[in-house]
Amino acid sequence: MNNSLQTAGILAIGDELVLGQKLDTNSQWLASRLTELGYEVITHQLVPDDQQTIADAIQTLMANAHLVICTGGLGPTLDDLTRQSLADVLNDKLVTDDQAIAQLKAFFKDIPMPKANLAQALRPAHAVCLTNPVGTAPGLLYKADSTIIACLPGPPSEMMPMFDQLAEHHLAQQHADNAIHQRLIHTVSMGESELATKLGSLMDRGNDPAVGTTASGLIVTCRLRTTGNRAKLDLIENQIRQHLGDVVFGVDDQTLPQTIISLLKEQNQCLAAAESCTGGMLGALLTAASGSSDAYEGGWITYTNEMKQKCLGVPADIFSQQGDGAVSQICARYMALGVLKHAPDVHHALAITGIAGPCGATPDKPAGTVWIAHASRTSEPDVRLFHFKGSRQQIRRYACISALAMLHRALTHAAPRRLVFERTPSED
Amino acid sequence: MNNSLQTAGILAIGDELVLGQKLDTNSQWLASRLTELGYEVITHQLVPDDQQTIADAIQTLMANAHLVICTGGLGPTLDDLTRQSLADVLNDKLVTDDQAIAQLKAFFKDIPMPKANLAQALRPAHAVCLTNPVGTAPGLLYKADSTIIACLPGPPSEMMPMFDQLAEHHLAQQHADNAIHQRLIHTVSMGESELATKLGSLMDRGNDPAVGTTASGLIVTCRLRTTGNRAKLDLIENQIRQHLGDVVFGVDDQTLPQTIISLLKEQNQCLAAAESCTGGMLGALLTAASGSSDAYEGGWITYTNEMKQKCLGVPADIFSQQGDGAVSQICARYMALGVLKHAPDVHHALAITGIAGPCGATPDKPAGTVWIAHASRTSEPDVRLFHFKGSRQQIRRYACISALAMLHRALTHAAPRRLVFERTPSED
Repeated sequence: MNNSLQTAGILAIGDELVLGQKLDTNSQWLASRLTELGYEVITHQLVPDDQQTIADAIQTLMANAHLVICTGGLGPTLDDLTRQSLADVLNDKLVTDDQAIAQLKAFFKDIPMPKANLAQALRPAHAVCLTNPVGTAPGLLYKADSTIIACLPGPPSEMMPMFDQLAEHHLAQQHADNAIHQRLIHTVSMGESELATKLGSLMDRGNDPAVGTTASGLIVTCRLRTTGNRAKLDLIENQIRQHLGDVVFGVDDQTLPQTIISLLKEQNQCLAAAESCTGGMLGALLTAASGSSDAYEGGWITYTNEMKQKCLGVPADIFSQQGDGAVSQICARYMALGVLKHAPDVHHALAITGIAGPCGATPDKPAGTVWIAHASRTSEPDVRLFHFKGSRQQIRRYACISALAMLHRALTHAAPRRLVFERTPSED
Repeated sequence: MNNSLQTAGILAIGDELVLGQKLDTNSQWLASRLTELGYEVITHQLVPDDQQTIADAIQTLMANAHLVICTGGLGPTLDDLTRQSLADVLNDKLVTDDQAIAQLKAFFKDIPMPKANLAQALRPAHAVCLTNPVGTAPGLLYKADSTIIACLPGPPSEMMPMFDQLAEHHLAQQHADNAIHQRLIHTVSMGESELATKLGSLMDRGNDPAVGTTASGLIVTCRLRTTGNRAKLDLIENQIRQHLGDVVFGVDDQTLPQTIISLLKEQNQCLAAAESCTGGMLGALLTAASGSSDAYEGGWITYTNEMKQKCLGVPADIFSQQGDGAVSQICARYMALGVLKHAPDVHHALAITGIAGPCGATPDKPAGTVWIAHASRTSEPDVRLFHFKGSRQQIRRYACISALAMLHRALTHAAPRRLVFERTPSED
């Protein structure tokens, strides 16, 4: 093998993928990882659970790429045919792998192993098994002089760690001149077009590094890409940070909840929250990373008016005919102050109350109307009105991200800024 | 054309897709629509912005499918090459389409049209343009006796309405005998291989309807597929329900949280929950569907020991040196009983406490150790130990689904059953 660019092809296997019952996300993830490793990904293909079709597809990809990565079809059932197809391609018999049997037995040590799982210990004679630390399906690896074929399980949670193992032990790092380097710079609180205007000529076509933006939820991400010298990314990252200032919250894998937890820890502070329409989603986001209990105490999911009164002391008259109702500035304020009162150790409280829709929407308060409050021990509560647009799930997610954006700006002492989807109540 | 099954191949075009910078969602959408129309989708492929590669891919798909649908590569820039590739395939020259020019001019009537957009009015001489009501890129259509090739724009918002137009005017509704019908039957509480064993010969290859299974989280789904007579699905669904009994909770789009909310509403009952390691995820799942407030009151996210004591009355000595700690049978039990006490209107309480890891894991209580309690007004609390395997996020999700599975079995008066990943404490 020389230093010329190594090519890779990706094959996803499964009726449910080809029929459109399920979205294939594995191939994108693999393509992105392979590109980072310096491979040129030449194609992705999806094929059904058919032994001959799978074998033909592997054969075609082998003829065109140095590396073929397959996902799916390694389960214990009759429609899992990747093992047989690879054996056909290699003109091999299937044999039982002793180590794989031992690992299956370990996985099932506390419960009887269904007979069907034994099929998962089969491999083509000239292939080896790849250990699955998470599930029952071992992967398969065939390595020849100029070709590598790896078959990985379909569930992303099993596929990803197995690919990382494979990359570490079996895929030679490609020549450094060919490696593509990428960096993501994440922002919140600013819309994509305002951000693009601020970046100006940094986004011109043909620039190196290339700079693009993508928006997902309320997070707008700048994507930087260059070939060869990684240091070029640092230079552009600095320029981008100068242009964008306090809306940048993280790079690459870093999430907004992680940034919030880190900032709170740095400042020796902690947080609790009261959630209505988000139903626990804010808490789930904050606790997605390990170690969040140092900065997040917990909270109340006060989905009904009764829970808002009982748990947080929101006055009953707010919910009466004459009151402003649960989706109001005063209710959000009481919820946040109730959190500070009932969690006496916390420094910050967030409260979210709104209409995620479609139920509960009225002409006055359409779906997407959400009040968010941030209260702390040291300042007046900051209570804001948002009119989010989107599906129920999007509105709930936007509300969580906006609550975190408010806290992010408070913790970083950022300048006042009207957030995306924010409205002044008088506009109504 | 005869009544035999028409086949379709899908081709997505774009460097950003092949490199994994962007997820292709068009192909899944198209596959699902084509299947509904009675086409058998045989493969999806993704290729980069390279004229020859695109042409080769179209040619290969043409040889194997009656219908080829391409997306992407119709924009105005230099890397948009689908027009040229289709011309190569058809051995055609590119000509300017007068109607497309008129439509471009109409689109740009208020602003100057960039010169580059003129390229979008080009088409292979033997193809026709498909109108784009939303954007600037017309589609392309080539129709011969036994082959149709359609090229649609990449942005889903432009692609989808153009496909719907195409389907209405150019894709003959397949003979009803060829229409493919699908059904999903969702189960929880049983592993995939035990389920496959119970289904036995129902899953044999070549059966009609075809029956396959997929597992996602702890939900195992049977996928039924048949051609022609939809009633065959009902027959097999009944047989599957007989084989699987009370682990079936829904069909097609129905989720487990939706089933739980429906069952509670039917029985005029409601639920509250206490969450520790799941941090609100259970609440977020239960409130994902509109109208859940009729059956879900809310809950407590008691992420710290202090919150468990303060909000739910878990005795402090559980957390002392001599106590069993927060991840214990007794703590889960107290949490569930605390919910019943502090939410006096609810009939059911769920409580989850465990170690999602990697922080907090000990040799005694490794990551994945989770206690789940279900308490009601009418019976002794049911408290179970689980040893989940997987990432932090998976463990949290498994815990939520297992809690819902316990409640599902209680609400349906199902027979006692050891759940997936459940352990008896004495095994430790």
